[in-house]
Amino acid sequence: MSLNFGRAQLSIPGPSVIPDRVLNAMHRASPNIYEGELIDITASLYPDLKAVARTKHHAAIYIANGHGAWEAALANTCSRGDKILVLVTGRFGQGWADVAGRTGIEVETMDFGMQDAVDPQRLCDRLKADNTHEIKGILTVQTDTASSVQNDIPAIRKAIDDAGHPALFYVDCIASLGCDRHEMDDWGVDVMVTACQKGLMTPAGMSFVFFNDKAAAAQEHADLVTNYWDWHPRANPKQFYQQFGGTAPTHHLFGLREALTMLVHEEGIEQAWKRHDTSARAVWAAVETWGCLQLNIADPSRRSRAVTTVRSQGDECGRLRHWCEHQGGLTLGIGLGFAEKGQPVWEQVLRVAHMGHLNPVMLMGALGTMDTGLKALGIAHGSGALDAASTVLANHSAV
Amino acid sequence: MSLNFGRAQLSIPGPSVIPDRVLNAMHRASPNIYEGELIDITASLYPDLKAVARTKHHAAIYIANGHGAWEAALANTCSRGDKILVLVTGRFGQGWADVAGRTGIEVETMDFGMQDAVDPQRLCDRLKADNTHEIKGILTVQTDTASSVQNDIPAIRKAIDDAGHPALFYVDCIASLGCDRHEMDDWGVDVMVTACQKGLMTPAGMSFVFFNDKAAAAQEHADLVTNYWDWHPRANPKQFYQQFGGTAPTHHLFGLREALTMLVHEEGIEQAWKRHDTSARAVWAAVETWGCLQLNIADPSRRSRAVTTVRSQGDECGRLRHWCEHQGGLTLGIGLGFAEKGQPVWEQVLRVAHMGHLNPVMLMGALGTMDTGLKALGIAHGSGALDAASTVLANHSAV
Amino acid sequence: MSLNFGRAQLSIPGPSVIPDRVLNAMHRASPNIYEGELIDITASLYPDLKAVARTKHHAAIYIANGHGAWEAALANTCSRGDKILVLVTGRFGQGWADVAGRTGIEVETMDFGMQDAVDPQRLCDRLKADNTHEIKGILTVQTDTASSVQNDIPAIRKAIDDAGHPALFYVDCIASLGCDRHEMDDWGVDVMVTACQKGLMTPAGMSFVFFNDKAAAAQEHADLVTNYWDWHPRANPKQFYQQFGGTAPTHHLFGLREALTMLVHEEGIEQAWKRHDTSARAVWAAVETWGCLQLNIADPSRRSRAVTTVRSQGDECGRLRHWCEHQGGLTLGIGLGFAEKGQPVWEQVLRVAHMGHLNPVMLMGALGTMDTGLKALGIAHGSGALDAASTVLANHSAV
Amino acid sequence: MSLNFGRAQLSIPGPSVIPDRVLNAMHRASPNIYEGELIDITASLYPDLKAVARTKHHAAIYIANGHGAWEAALANTCSRGDKILVLVTGRFGQGWADVAGRTGIEVETMDFGMQDAVDPQRLCDRLKADNTHEIKGILTVQTDTASSVQNDIPAIRKAIDDAGHPALFYVDCIASLGCDRHEMDDWGVDVMVTACQKGLMTPAGMSFVFFNDKAAAAQEHADLVTNYWDWHPRANPKQFYQQFGGTAPTHHLFGLREALTMLVHEEGIEQAWKRHDTSARAVWAAVETWGCLQLNIADPSRRSRAVTTVRSQGDECGRLRHWCEHQGGLTLGIGLGFAEKGQPVWEQVLRVAHMGHLNPVMLMGALGTMDTGLKALGIAHGSGALDAASTVLANHSAV
Repeated sequence: MSLNFGRAQLSIPGPSVIPDRVLNAMHRASPNIYEGELIDITASLYPDLKAVARTKHHAAIYIANGHGAWEAALANTCSRGDKILVLVTGRFGQGWADVAGRTGIEVETMDFGMQDAVDPQRLCDRLKADNTHEIKGILTVQTDTASSVQNDIPAIRKAIDDAGHPALFYVDCIASLGCDRHEMDDWGVDVMVTACQKGLMTPAGMSFVFFNDKAAAAQEHADLVTNYWDWHPRANPKQFYQQFGGTAPTHHLFGLREALTMLVHEEGIEQAWKRHDTSARAVWAAVETWGCLQLNIADPSRRSRAVTTVRSQGDECGRLRHWCEHQGGLTLGIGLGFAEKGQPVWEQVLRVAHMGHLNPVMLMGALGTMDTGLKALGIAHGSGALDAASTVLANHSAV
Repeated sequence: MSLNFGRAQLSIPGPSVIPDRVLNAMHRASPNIYEGELIDITASLYPDLKAVARTKHHAAIYIANGHGAWEAALANTCSRGDKILVLVTGRFGQGWADVAGRTGIEVETMDFGMQDAVDPQRLCDRLKADNTHEIKGILTVQTDTASSVQNDIPAIRKAIDDAGHPALFYVDCIASLGCDRHEMDDWGVDVMVTACQKGLMTPAGMSFVFFNDKAAAAQEHADLVTNYWDWHPRANPKQFYQQFGGTAPTHHLFGLREALTMLVHEEGIEQAWKRHDTSARAVWAAVETWGCLQLNIADPSRRSRAVTTVRSQGDECGRLRHWCEHQGGLTLGIGLGFAEKGQPVWEQVLRVAHMGHLNPVMLMGALGTMDTGLKALGIAHGSGALDAASTVLANHSAV
Repeated sequence: MSLNFGRAQLSIPGPSVIPDRVLNAMHRASPNIYEGELIDITASLYPDLKAVARTKHHAAIYIANGHGAWEAALANTCSRGDKILVLVTGRFGQGWADVAGRTGIEVETMDFGMQDAVDPQRLCDRLKADNTHEIKGILTVQTDTASSVQNDIPAIRKAIDDAGHPALFYVDCIASLGCDRHEMDDWGVDVMVTACQKGLMTPAGMSFVFFNDKAAAAQEHADLVTNYWDWHPRANPKQFYQQFGGTAPTHHLFGLREALTMLVHEEGIEQAWKRHDTSARAVWAAVETWGCLQLNIADPSRRSRAVTTVRSQGDECGRLRHWCEHQGGLTLGIGLGFAEKGQPVWEQVLRVAHMGHLNPVMLMGALGTMDTGLKALGIAHGSGALDAASTVLANHSAV
Repeated sequence: MSLNFGRAQLSIPGPSVIPDRVLNAMHRASPNIYEGELIDITASLYPDLKAVARTKHHAAIYIANGHGAWEAALANTCSRGDKILVLVTGRFGQGWADVAGRTGIEVETMDFGMQDAVDPQRLCDRLKADNTHEIKGILTVQTDTASSVQNDIPAIRKAIDDAGHPALFYVDCIASLGCDRHEMDDWGVDVMVTACQKGLMTPAGMSFVFFNDKAAAAQEHADLVTNYWDWHPRANPKQFYQQFGGTAPTHHLFGLREALTMLVHEEGIEQAWKRHDTSARAVWAAVETWGCLQLNIADPSRRSRAVTTVRSQGDECGRLRHWCEHQGGLTLGIGLGFAEKGQPVWEQVLRVAHMGHLNPVMLMGALGTMDTGLKALGIAHGSGALDAASTVLANHSAV
């Protein structure tokens, strides 16, 4: 018998759950694009975006997904033949490297596998060896959505500084911004890219590049920049349309306005980080108690607070994900980027997102559905997983 | 710290959760009320309403809440000075009696308290004593939302028949229709009233009276009927507006159309009953495992499958409800109709609804939030309640 | 070829066009009905409703359409056998008389036909003849939506006063409130009924009764009142649900909140009356210029500012309405209540609404579509009708 | 007095009016992006997009505005140093040229001013002079939204063919697709770019590039292509996400699905062209009758059927636009790209859009509001303009 007749819950690592208020803000007629509300709303977004990114510097909005933002970051700072070093800890780090390579940039990757964070010492050693400062940029992902590793951005910055290397430091915060703590300016990040559909709780279709003055200056010597990717008129427009290199993404701007009001003005970004930390710990507690699934990242300090990748010996992950989708009303994320013997592995990995618009009823609903699925499928598991999760939430909750 | 930054879930015994599809169907311009889509959609509602009520007889739609439907049922069948017998098992049975009394009907109540169902034998005895058939109607509530008792409608019918009594039999299915099994025709119910905001998953503001030919004929001798309550033009209109005694509730009709499509054509009413049965059993299992809260109705066969009333010795219910509302993202129902020493008791009762648009992720979310609240508040409780609930769901679920 | 591929415009005299903001306010989850936002929003509605009605006295909200409000007004003030006098100037006055008669009230009607307003002198004469004050109530409609006559409420009040008659004075403002000037207290109206779907710009399904202390006191001797219609707990509730005699019409309350914000706080009621006056005059100017259609009410001072009924010798009205509906994207109102030789006349009447959410683009769109239809159908008409209408608007518009 | 209290109408040349159905289709939770409805809906878009473009070849969807599509078209087919010829007839032709120049392409422009269409003979002559076929691409805009000129695409193709020139032929249909007749394959267009927010009636944020096999093959020798712009995986994806070079624009896809259902399956593209032709002619008739404003394009055959640019000697256009915006409820387009003595001219130009979701009530509403504004502002104008417009509509309308 199917019990699945209610509101489906999306717990994939992006797009995340869009708040009703954001959807409502987008349900409106197209506006005048030359004067009035749209112009004012758009101007109001930048301070809030920078508050989320923790930067006082520049922000550019792109009608593009995160992969577009990857190109934008590179196009504004690099030339064909420039060399960059990409620190890979999952599929998305590799993806950014591929994008760079396609533009004519020379790419060197340093791969840390699917279960480990970047090792700052390895990086430092490599940079010290680069006496001629051939490497123009160092790219990494704060949270790789595939592996759910969370890289230690300050430690990576320190490794660069310890090596005395002048390369620009680029960080992809697509899956982490608004969830995992990120301090762009304090941590010395030069270029940061993100997108709207995860911690920023807005339907997919808009991305952002933040950059400091050092990065801004790099455009002068970059030959990859095009009109569409040029961040200067976007960040410092003389006319409204220049912020978008043409027609504005009207409805996304209305949606983002509402989402930032919730995140920045109602909850507060520091509180959001704490909430994500507690939510993540509740998920880990449940997974550890079940026992039949393994957390992909062993070191808790290196786990994302936005998404958790779990693995199984056999096809338990795949079967569980399928049950939750079709019987439970819960959509979990598929495994991405894992392989065995060169073949992609789909059924042995799943991902639980706990990013963005989330509260105890949603989180316990997701874990409770997974628990139900394990039982329905006859997958042996430890009991008490939900008690373990609710204990974590209770311990960190106000009364 | 507040963890409550996600989508709030409503688990009160009406209004229930409105499906997004229903809200979307209502988000539209007002229609032409003289021709076109509205007329066709309205006509299509009756067969589906009757399919939910399990009747081949008549259905009238009212712009009114359930209390309005109570008056409609009586106004079409009674005269001032007529006598009726109301079988009370909670606040709503008493409410219907009060409504009747106000119209000039003579009301006799038979009260079974807040924790027991109607005793058919007591009824049978009373009816046998009514040699002159002074009693014109027998009223009861299938599921009293306050006590969460579920009365045994076929047994009550049998008691009436055993007494050979000709009174009309009226049943309030406001909280039960679409959730608890109800077979209007097979069970010999003459008049059935319900409303749209519970099992029918439509925003509050519309109610329904179903009646068979015996009830229809009673209007001839009823002097309480008014234009607004008259069910004949509503059930058998010559012109469109007569169905509503004036202007149609346009947006509610669009919403109900979508809700009935989901309930009747996609899920099927028998499947809905089974789903509610399993959901209710999962809630009972959790409550019994916690131990610190008591199920208000001892006999499982007499418990509603739409809502569960639980009680505590002290103010645990009140504190838990408050925590869930403000920290958990879950709205539970307050206690209604309970008293001690003549004073209403608010903090020792709460109600968990499991009616309508529901799936495992919502149900486990509600129970998981309550479990978290018990822990956060330091209310001693048995462990394993969520395992108990997920086991029930798993045992009745497809794979 | 059909040119009709855009957004249809509704210009029927209720339901009127619902503002997008009102629809958006209604597109939300069902709320907690025991605490929080719903309770606060509901409380905030009364001062604004009274501001629209221009009364300092009492307001009751009903889940019902206007016909329900008719019954409510009578049920709270009358008993079976009481006599009332209904001043009929169209279908809706007669409708209210019919409703009253059905309850057991003795009804005397004074009919002024479909093209004239109430004659105060005739009323005064009749009341003077009622030496024994047998007549307990005098009922009339401010704007009869069928005929589009606007009765002179202060003149009727004066006639009652001149006759020294103590009867209660009831006015139906369903089609006029928020459109035609209405001053309940200053004009000496005792009971006023209205509904939400016309000048109040909210989807059909809610109505209102306003009453002063004299009317309030009448309930003491009224035997028609029932729980559902009783206005006292609605107007002076001890508990939230009493305002609605049961479950609140949650989504309508959210919608009405937004509509009243627009009407009372943003536009202002006096400004709304002026706007409706200008809009009506623009419609009259166009109709008069066309020449082929006649304004139903000859005296401009007695024409509604909310709706205009027009007539044709032959079936021009019917053909034009049909063309506008299917080719023009404009829904006009059908004729109601007109008859010739005892047979209803449908094709010789139509109604253009200009009530509620309206601006020049909508009004000129409606008239421009009618003008197009006259040409498409080959109905001879004077040219310059739209110039005449735009001249009226221009003359009363800010620059 | 302000009469502006109704629903504002947008008549700017993009974004156009979004149908309620499209907005409703976008008002939904984020979907599973790995399986289910989103995947099926996306697949269904391509045949319909090609039906609108009148091509059997390839279609790529971009999360980008039209300026992004401009870059995509060039990036897939050109290398740095390649030479292209851009035929400029307004601001947007020049804009495309600027975008091309920024990428390192050598750009030659042939400017036909703001009031004339491309002269095919001049083009033919220039191409004949290019013996070495240095020119790799010829770019033009079908309808330049600034000037409202409509270029004669078949005639331009013929000029290329007459010159025997092998260059690729690129056409920007951003403002024309779905409005002005366009036959990509029959007219010999190699690359066509468009966007979603005009004739395709979807909120801004998505654009499209259509290309034939000759254009597809050009990528082999193009060094400008990047991952984001590469059209091959988008048009022929192995995995779902490749269609969008990353995360899908979920809500835009749902919206576009509804819009294409309306345009392709309900109205039909040929009928849409006819409707736009009639609507445009009605606007021209009104403008010509007013006399105080001049149609920017003298030759009717070269005027866009989607937008009409009008000019005034003094600041009449600016004042009228301002009045319509603030008093009439009508947003008209500002003038773009016009200059006198090197200074931009804002107040002497305005644009009336008549694209997309349009019917007589909307069109007559727009013209009627402009007519009212002219009167309110005391701008002398001929009478009968609205009669002239309604006559055009009536003459082309079904009965």
